[in-house]
This record gives sequence, C-alpha cells and structure tokens, in this order.
Amino acid sequence: MNGIEITNITKSFGDTLALNEISLKFEPDKIYGLLGRNGAGKSTLLNIITNRLFADSGDITIDGQTSVENDHAQNKIYLMSEKNLYPRSMNCKEAFNWSQSFYPNFDLDSALKLSRLFGLDLKKKIRALSTGYSSIFKIVIALSVNTPYVLFDEPVLGLDANHRELFYKLLIEKYSETPFTAIISTHLIEEISTLLESVIIIKNGKILINETCETLMHKGYSLAGTAKQVDDFIRDKEVIGIDTLGGLKTATIIGDLDKQHLPESLEIANLDLQKLFIKLTNEE
Amino acid sequence: MNGIEITNITKSFGDTLALNEISLKFEPDKIYGLLGRNGAGKSTLLNIITNRLFADSGDITIDGQTSVENDHAQNKIYLMSEKNLYPRSMNCKEAFNWSQSFYPNFDLDSALKLSRLFGLDLKKKIRALSTGYSSIFKIVIALSVNTPYVLFDEPVLGLDANHRELFYKLLIEKYSETPFTAIISTHLIEEISTLLESVIIIKNGKILINETCETLMHKGYSLAGTAKQVDDFIRDKEVIGIDTLGGLKTATIIGDLDKQHLPESLEIANLDLQKLFIKLTNEE
Repeated sequence: MNGIEITNITKSFGDTLALNEISLKFEPDKIYGLLGRNGAGKSTLLNIITNRLFADSGDITIDGQTSVENDHAQNKIYLMSEKNLYPRSMNCKEAFNWSQSFYPNFDLDSALKLSRLFGLDLKKKIRALSTGYSSIFKIVIALSVNTPYVLFDEPVLGLDANHRELFYKLLIEKYSETPFTAIISTHLIEEISTLLESVIIIKNGKILINETCETLMHKGYSLAGTAKQVDDFIRDKEVIGIDTLGGLKTATIIGDLDKQHLPESLEIANLDLQKLFIKLTNEE
Repeated sequence: MNGIEITNITKSFGDTLALNEISLKFEPDKIYGLLGRNGAGKSTLLNIITNRLFADSGDITIDGQTSVENDHAQNKIYLMSEKNLYPRSMNCKEAFNWSQSFYPNFDLDSALKLSRLFGLDLKKKIRALSTGYSSIFKIVIALSVNTPYVLFDEPVLGLDANHRELFYKLLIEKYSETPFTAIISTHLIEEISTLLESVIIIKNGKILINETCETLMHKGYSLAGTAKQVDDFIRDKEVIGIDTLGGLKTATIIGDLDKQHLPESLEIANLDLQKLFIKLTNEE
C-alpha cells in the first residue's frame, strides 16, 4: 500500500478535458520522469496530488490514505512548482525558517549549504529573484525538506548549464544517501534521461507511456556513419530523426536493431529519449 | 562599417561591475551564440545595444551610426527579451498589429502562419499566456519583424522539446531565405550549437571567448569505449567530462587528438559545446 496511487482521475477546466481517467502508481524510493508537452496535463496532475486543485472524479491515495484534505498524507509530499507560494516580501533565509514550521524534517543546515553551492543570496527578497534564482531557491527547499515524496515541476527553468548540472548531481547524491520518491516534470528531457528509473509520458490528458527507462530505451537506437552508408541502411526503417554534420549523418530509428545486416562501419548508440519523446507527442 | 560594433562598453549597477570594457563586433548575416552564466552580463549587453539601458562609458555603432537615442539605427534591431514590453491587456493578434506600426517590414502573414504552427491562440491576452506561450508569442514577432538584426534573449524559456525543435528549424529556414544577423543568448547550449557560426562567451562582465564555432569545436573531442579502454587513454589528458552507461564510458577531452596512440576500438566524436562551456565558466 506504499506509494502514490492514482485511480481514474478526471479533471476539466470549462470545455477542456485536462486529465482523462488517469491511473498511475508512483512507488516509493524511485525517480520518475513525468513528461509531456506544454498543456498535456502534467502540472494539473501534480496540483491535484497536492490538493492545490481538486479532481472532478477519481481517487488518490498516499501510502494507502486518501490525499484529499488529509494533512497527515499531505505532509509526506512537497511540490516545487512554478507558482511561488512564499510571501514575496520575505527574504530567502526567512522563507527557509518558515518552511521549517511546516515541514518538521526540513534541514536548515542543508538549505544553507546548498544555497552556498548555488550562489543564492539569502538576504534577497523572493520577489527580487531572477527566473533562474527563483528556481534555485525552490530547488534548495525541495532538496532540504526531507519528505518521502518530492514533486519537481520544471525545476531547471532559467538555470544556466552549470547550475543544471549541479542540480542533477545534488539530486542523485541526496537520493543515494536517503532514497525518496522524486517525480520530475521537465522539458529538458535529454539532460535528465540518465537520472530516471521510469518515464511517464502524458499526451492530451491520457497516459501514453508508463515504462522503465531501460525498456523505453530499447525501443530504438541511433547510428552514425557517412551519409551514404546511413541512407542505405535506413531505407526500410522507421526513422524519427536525422542529424547531419559535414559528410557524417546520425539517424535515430525505432525498432529492433537488425545486427546481421548492419555494415561494420556504422556506429551504434543509445536512443535519444528527447527525440523519441518528440516523435511520440507531435501532433500530426 | 556594417554590423554592430561595440567598443569599450562598461556598465555598473551600484557596486557591481556588470560589463567591464567589452569590445566586440557582430557582422552582418551571421548567427551568433551569446553565452554566459546567469548574471554574466549578457542581458545587460543586449539591453545597452537596444537603448533599454545606457552604458557608463564606451560606444556602440549600428552600420556605422551611433546606437544611442538614434531611431534610424534602433529601427534596424529587434530585441526579444524575457521582459514583455507589450501592454498586458492586449491579445496576441492586437499585439501583432501594434508591432506593424513600429516595424514597417513586420510581416503579418508570417506571424499568423507561425502562430498556427506553434498552436498560439491569437485571442489570448498577453497576461494570460503561460511561460512557454509567452516565449512563443515573442518568437513569432522576432521571426516576422524583418529587421537586419534580431537579438534573442532566452528565446526557448518554458518551451517543450517539440516547440524548441520547431523554433530552431524555423530560424534556420528564415535565415536561409533572407539572411540576417541573429544573436542568441540561451542556456540550452548543446541544442543550439549546430545553428551557430560564432560563439561569444561572457564571464564576469568580460569576453572570455570570441571564436567561430568551428575553431571552438577543435579545442577538444569526445571519445567512447569500454570503461577500461577510455580510462587507459585519458590518463594523461585534460578531461572535462565523463559519462558512464553500463560498461561504456564517454570522456570529453580538451587538447589535440593524438591519433597515433588512439586504440582503434575507441570512437571519436565532436566536442560537446555545453560541457566545454561549463568547464570554462565554472568558478573554482
């Protein structure tokens, strides 16, 4: 009975069906990628899990208890979202203290250490933070809050490449020390793909994919070689992406690799999760 | 005398030296990447070029004419920035019409076509746009405005992977039809790297790198193979990144490739621009 269990959740906004009979389970101590296009319903789902929105129908349980208006269940979850719920006139340090009063396991020492690593100015008011530092402020809380379930909605919005790399590293370190359930919704799919154990793709309010990352990565492969070699090999394959650089070509292909007929000169690499995502979620 | 010529530009905010004697030239009809960490000074430079901020000292000319309070020069530039300068109660269609009155070459047909491709709802008020669609609204204008210089400050903020790919494709198509100067400041470096002709990296208000992408990519290389083979080969090399997947390892290395001593079983690939950027701009 452990984990977050979502059963037949439906939610509409006016005429728009945002979530259509979604059922899904998040198991304890795993890292999930919750992927989808803008407007697919990811944030709606995260907001329903955390009682910021209420479903039209369906049930959610957290470790076996209903999620709805249940403080005991909600105290096990932290949602880092684009919307900032902290009073905008507080500075970052005050906000950390405030977090402690809601989340008794909030680790202030960790928050101060992470702030140093990211270069977050603790005296800065929340309203004065740039897009990138607003994300960092929320990342610091999410990585210090010590709830068994942490939901990240677009955690790296506005972060530079160095800070994104630091976030991925700190998340993995934290998870290795004290495993927890991380549900990460992000548009930077390729960067995060090596962190994920399972991938859920939502499309138009429905679950399109719910598989381990390993299973998903075996749905196809990439290969590289001279343009002619690649063109010859892919003629009868389902190609979802082509990159060309000088005379070299890389193709991303869906399907099993036919090793018998593969010319030795072609190089094989893993499937690019972002390319697969684009292919699966593009509207025709 | 064509192009944007920046000479000894210095700008402070209080005690903070944002730009420190920057000199730089953007030539006509090229695509530049203007890269730097959060707070490096990129947006400050773009805002000074477009008169939204004024430098403490230094000069900027646009096609040989001063940029400062010179409408003739400024009419040649469009800056797409995070800050939205359109009245928030306008809807998108009204904003396109409004753009036409400022930019006589603004192509309304193009804007309508691009809006359809991105799925932008033209009746939506600017204030009601999500982060992703706010970026899309500004991308549509930037790609329809037809000024010889278009400056993009974080154009893909909040965009999903499909829309980012669409933006890169439309930018290249536009550029191929009617070349113009695009200066793109972005944190998603690896995705954009194949589009760029030249790369400028700003670090702490100074120019760190100003080179063609080709020259920059020859500063190093990546190689992949079994963990042991890679470890043996990189022992005496300057390694800036390691990725491991199962028994395979990929290393990113700075320096010339020593082809003579390279085991045949190792695969060579191009340098990852984002990894190089992180290495060059990390604070020690």
